Amino acid sequence: MRAVVFDEELKLVEDYQKPAPKSGEALIRIEMAGVCNTDAEIIKGYMGYKGVLGHEFVGIVEEVNSDDKSLVGKRVVGEISNACEECDMCHLGLQRHCFDRVTMGILKHDGCMAEYMTWSIKDLLVVPDNVSNEEAVLTEPLAAGLEILEQLHIQPIERLLILGDGKLGLLTALGLHASNVDVTLVGKHQNKLDLAKNQGIKTMLLSDLEVKPEWDFVVEATGSSSGFETAMALTKPRGTLVLKSTVADSKPMNLAPIVINELRVQGSRCGRFKPALRLLSAKKVDVKPIITNIYDSKEALKAFEKNRDKASVKVVIKF
Amino acid sequence: MRAVVFDEELKLVEDYQKPAPKSGEALIRIEMAGVCNTDAEIIKGYMGYKGVLGHEFVGIVEEVNSDDKSLVGKRVVGEISNACEECDMCHLGLQRHCFDRVTMGILKHDGCMAEYMTWSIKDLLVVPDNVSNEEAVLTEPLAAGLEILEQLHIQPIERLLILGDGKLGLLTALGLHASNVDVTLVGKHQNKLDLAKNQGIKTMLLSDLEVKPEWDFVVEATGSSSGFETAMALTKPRGTLVLKSTVADSKPMNLAPIVINELRVQGSRCGRFKPALRLLSAKKVDVKPIITNIYDSKEALKAFEKNRDKASVKVVIKF
Repeated sequence: MRAVVFDEELKLVEDYQKPAPKSGEALIRIEMAGVCNTDAEIIKGYMGYKGVLGHEFVGIVEEVNSDDKSLVGKRVVGEISNACEECDMCHLGLQRHCFDRVTMGILKHDGCMAEYMTWSIKDLLVVPDNVSNEEAVLTEPLAAGLEILEQLHIQPIERLLILGDGKLGLLTALGLHASNVDVTLVGKHQNKLDLAKNQGIKTMLLSDLEVKPEWDFVVEATGSSSGFETAMALTKPRGTLVLKSTVADSKPMNLAPIVINELRVQGSRCGRFKPALRLLSAKKVDVKPIITNIYDSKEALKAFEKNRDKASVKVVIKF
Repeated sequence: MRAVVFDEELKLVEDYQKPAPKSGEALIRIEMAGVCNTDAEIIKGYMGYKGVLGHEFVGIVEEVNSDDKSLVGKRVVGEISNACEECDMCHLGLQRHCFDRVTMGILKHDGCMAEYMTWSIKDLLVVPDNVSNEEAVLTEPLAAGLEILEQLHIQPIERLLILGDGKLGLLTALGLHASNVDVTLVGKHQNKLDLAKNQGIKTMLLSDLEVKPEWDFVVEATGSSSGFETAMALTKPRGTLVLKSTVADSKPMNLAPIVINELRVQGSRCGRFKPALRLLSAKKVDVKPIITNIYDSKEALKAFEKNRDKASVKVVIKF
């Protein structure tokens, strides 16, 4: 089968071995997969991963290795981590932090940028009929934005600023705005900011932003290590800086402002799919304009090139 | 009057101008002042401060500029920041983060390492009779340790590790242990660790510590920028790293573990005096062994030298 593989270098493989579902797993025919900046970081060496890339997909279950066949033929998305359900983290309900987890396309398991993928049945969710493939493929990054609401109590009166108008910043803005958070999105690209502005979100060019410590919450979603110091300078004393960017490099930084202003820095990674699907199905967010480019899987390498182009937002691959 | 002054260099001045209390202020005759590592950082350029150093003291009120003379003759300690009571921070009850604050010996106000200091009456607290000067002078750093309990909810079952057996780490250990937190203190100096161990606190040499992400709370109190990465590696996923050290330098660091493990980094500075005085008066902590050296004010510069000596813990100056 065709697969997008990273192994020292990024390549499109036409004869990758089609996987077979183990007990409790489903075989999924992938319809669409999204390119995430985490994939771009993996290609630079992040996580030391090798294998099929991709952790954002929508697909059809073709086969299950289980007595319960109810998922066969269903259109599904899948939580990206598969947990052991037996370690201390799992017992706390923190399966996404399971010490023995495998993560699709990131850690110890082939990802979804292929014609077929196997994945555990318990981590699959059926996509409601009124949610299109173009919407469903964005469930994962939308859930990552909503993760902030699982971790933090944001009072209705508090003001939240998102730094970065890339795909993660945009989807976080859409998800939080749809959850009635007072969101302002700041970035460098008017065309990207407009995607949020068109849905009623306050936006601002970075060059117009006064850097003063007056925001209750600042979400760092620039994807660059330099965004962190700006974020510290924007967060008000005793406020919260949500760190979303994972970057592979190290940068000299002085953390004294965290202590002096008693900031809380909350690391935030991926989120649960259910609330994201609920927003999509209720039509409370319109994520489709976030997709700027769709490539056929034959041109998957071009999709990765396009992902590096600052003019694009979300690039997806059709299988 | 005699005063310890930083102005390009550290000096002992014998004829510093004795201050006069403004309206609402008291004139305090200083009996004892503590040397803090923040003072040592100020001498390296931290905060760009110039003037009389010191923010830890116990003294006697000699005079007040107020109709209410009730404090005259009383032995007092003083909260280190004086707030405007009018800005947004003050209205939130966060006077320690007042945008217009002055901080004793750190920001826009002479400190307490002098024969006399003026300070606002509203920020003075009477020392209970059963608390000695040697105990009272440690109210401020003890309060800084207890600040963690104002900021965070530590469940009785959770385990907290303190990295660093300096004065801040030790006093934090004593204060949290006295508040029934499950504390383990880790450091490099057996003699310092023993000061905590003698009071029933679990201690461990850093060389014996297995660096695994298994602690619910890790308090970084090493006073060095390298402690942060160790602290990240010790904090369990979704756990909390309390950052106490303020250091003037910058160090390259990779913050990805904060995102991957969804850590919460809580900056923590100084605390309220009332709970610290309550612990001291109830004899629930014995802070006196923390003081390893007492100098007469004539030898104040030697006190600063001794503070650099790794064998010492708390150095205080008698006026």
